[in-house]
Amino acid sequence: MKTASICTIGDEILIGQIVDTNSSHISRELNLLGIQVRNMTSIGDDRSRIIEELGNCLDNTDIVIVTGGLGPTKDDITKDALRELSGSAGYRISPKQMAHIERILKARGIPMIENNRAQAMVPDNCTVIPNKLGTAPGMAFYGLGKNGTSALYSLPGVPFEAVGLLPDVMADIRGHFDLEAITHHTIVTFGIPESTLAKQIEPWEDALPDNIHLAYLPDPTLGVRLRLTQFGGEADFKPYIAELQKILGNAIYGEGDDTLQSVIGRRLREAGKTLALAESCTGGHLSELITSVAGCSDYYKGSVTSYSNEVKMKVLGVSADTLRQFGAVSEQCVREMSSGVLRALDTDYAVATSGIAGPGGGSPEKPVGTAWLAAAKRLPDGSISVATQCVHFASSRSVNIERFASYALDLLRRNL
Amino acid sequence: MKTASICTIGDEILIGQIVDTNSSHISRELNLLGIQVRNMTSIGDDRSRIIEELGNCLDNTDIVIVTGGLGPTKDDITKDALRELSGSAGYRISPKQMAHIERILKARGIPMIENNRAQAMVPDNCTVIPNKLGTAPGMAFYGLGKNGTSALYSLPGVPFEAVGLLPDVMADIRGHFDLEAITHHTIVTFGIPESTLAKQIEPWEDALPDNIHLAYLPDPTLGVRLRLTQFGGEADFKPYIAELQKILGNAIYGEGDDTLQSVIGRRLREAGKTLALAESCTGGHLSELITSVAGCSDYYKGSVTSYSNEVKMKVLGVSADTLRQFGAVSEQCVREMSSGVLRALDTDYAVATSGIAGPGGGSPEKPVGTAWLAAAKRLPDGSISVATQCVHFASSRSVNIERFASYALDLLRRNL
Repeated sequence: MKTASICTIGDEILIGQIVDTNSSHISRELNLLGIQVRNMTSIGDDRSRIIEELGNCLDNTDIVIVTGGLGPTKDDITKDALRELSGSAGYRISPKQMAHIERILKARGIPMIENNRAQAMVPDNCTVIPNKLGTAPGMAFYGLGKNGTSALYSLPGVPFEAVGLLPDVMADIRGHFDLEAITHHTIVTFGIPESTLAKQIEPWEDALPDNIHLAYLPDPTLGVRLRLTQFGGEADFKPYIAELQKILGNAIYGEGDDTLQSVIGRRLREAGKTLALAESCTGGHLSELITSVAGCSDYYKGSVTSYSNEVKMKVLGVSADTLRQFGAVSEQCVREMSSGVLRALDTDYAVATSGIAGPGGGSPEKPVGTAWLAAAKRLPDGSISVATQCVHFASSRSVNIERFASYALDLLRRNL
Repeated sequence: MKTASICTIGDEILIGQIVDTNSSHISRELNLLGIQVRNMTSIGDDRSRIIEELGNCLDNTDIVIVTGGLGPTKDDITKDALRELSGSAGYRISPKQMAHIERILKARGIPMIENNRAQAMVPDNCTVIPNKLGTAPGMAFYGLGKNGTSALYSLPGVPFEAVGLLPDVMADIRGHFDLEAITHHTIVTFGIPESTLAKQIEPWEDALPDNIHLAYLPDPTLGVRLRLTQFGGEADFKPYIAELQKILGNAIYGEGDDTLQSVIGRRLREAGKTLALAESCTGGHLSELITSVAGCSDYYKGSVTSYSNEVKMKVLGVSADTLRQFGAVSEQCVREMSSGVLRALDTDYAVATSGIAGPGGGSPEKPVGTAWLAAAKRLPDGSISVATQCVHFASSRSVNIERFASYALDLLRRNL
């Protein structure tokens, strides 16, 4: 099995100014190729530390992926460390990257300065992986490390540029290294906690053939993803998936990169149906999830965030009686919110949330972390049917909001 | 200057399943104490690698902070590695952590199992830093490393638990190490790019006394934060801040941990005024930012996400003529959206956004990344005044949405 190291370079990471999301993206991609990531490291903009650490990684792993340390103002240190480390004598210009730099600066209306021009200069022994989304190029160096067989890939630190280059980097790795064939199939589930799920599918897991490996990938927003991996040869996962479907039923909502919002979007688009949201405690997060799917305007009409009782009554038509008798965090209130927004925005489906995200505001009957959720649907006869659910969590404000939103999406999914 | 290393432990990080946000939080806190973070590393759940890497860190830095590798199912490896590394012979029970475990499990309605009980067991030479938010305790070990003076702190990996323990850990570090006195003052600016800002304040920066250091902390959502730091003695930053205010004027919106949404919230609350939002391209993200501030229901009444022209017309009162003549992404449309939601939700202020977040949907006149923003305010005579702004960005869908929302908040802030 090939091994890899991931290094991020930049003082801004060591002082905690930015969170490193690149390493996680990169390791996920490497993992899918069956490459084992041995370590991830962040180091500052310090030439000798860069050379020492990358040299170490090249001696101990087959593939080293570096992000950051490139850019118009800080190009010098990292790029020259890479030049020295790879035994290159000098620099050459990359005409491809120069063309991208010219085009990008022109589109932004920024004049080209010497620092930008310097970004197209690369150590003369590297293979350029052109970066269409930014000015710093991706670079590949081969034949390094104590065995002379390791490769180093250097990518810009800006997350969307680094992620944008990953498909080309992974293709280069597949072409350059003799990797064992590997196939994956991922099933996505929601609503069953990991430990319960593990118990439920234990006999199925025990009956898997030796060459199929199961991984649990729990995620607070996505649910628990179950990934089957087979090394070597063509895999036929179908019979095992069919068995799993019998055990887990409707808890399985998709496969691969599916999310609750992408699955909901696909099903609404196929059925030619529309969706509206009424948010209280989730404060816009539910709408943000729905609109994170490009093209959602095909089925998503919009939402009302009702952060005051006045808006609940005036815009969503929740009755004053309901608010007085049961309060805003109640089954009755989310029923009326969901049917109210369905009518106001004239849609086929609607979801509503009302709860207490915290940190303040709870009571003994409705502690912080409690929310009522509703999913309304218009029936063929024009009447509205509403499914409701009450959930309790005990996390921070932002985590509670994320969980309320995911459970609300799942309630809709189960009632489509 | 004291130095530190930060290590995260867990296979889930190395396979890219989760993004490590703890290291960034921890390094920010250490940085504020004047402690230099030398490196950050992630390693798997592998006993010998843990001992090797942490031993290395303890030999080379004064403070080592470890997160992860603790929990009901994977406690054994990390905790026993720490026991061996610290030269402890055995375990003792922590009654304080046991009490927290009992309370937490009871509140969640989960019976205590042997694995939970084991979480209250700690190496007998450690000082427990009790974790009120979860079952795994924080632990401090002193007198380690090749000089016998380094300290190791072990925290659970769950982000809100790790962050929750940080104040106690930092207090322990301040008590245990003789740190140089350090004072900070941070000014937050929005709307001037970092490079332009640097040019504008260059003479001011050059005139700072030698013992005051300036750091630029740019952030896509917060703007550019300028942090002044003085080592040793009591600092009086006031005269320098006053000078800076003369140069940057209204681009400065706050200090310390202020965000656009917290500053807007404070000013609305003080003035007894209310806010509504009408979102198109930002799809709920603006509302999410406003509601990320606890207690925002004092001034935030709610929002309408109008992802279809129908909702823009029906709920917000945008005229069919405007949409036909100028389109949804136009100054006229956001004017009508902002005044429409201000009237519909009966508030004093309102913000509206309409743009093209991408990836598809642009045109030569309105390329992807274009948005119109509006901030409306009700004047004393009852009429409505609207300020508008057009912005262009060239990032991914999610980054474009973040920037649209920040610029919309800033437009409101400048027009409060």
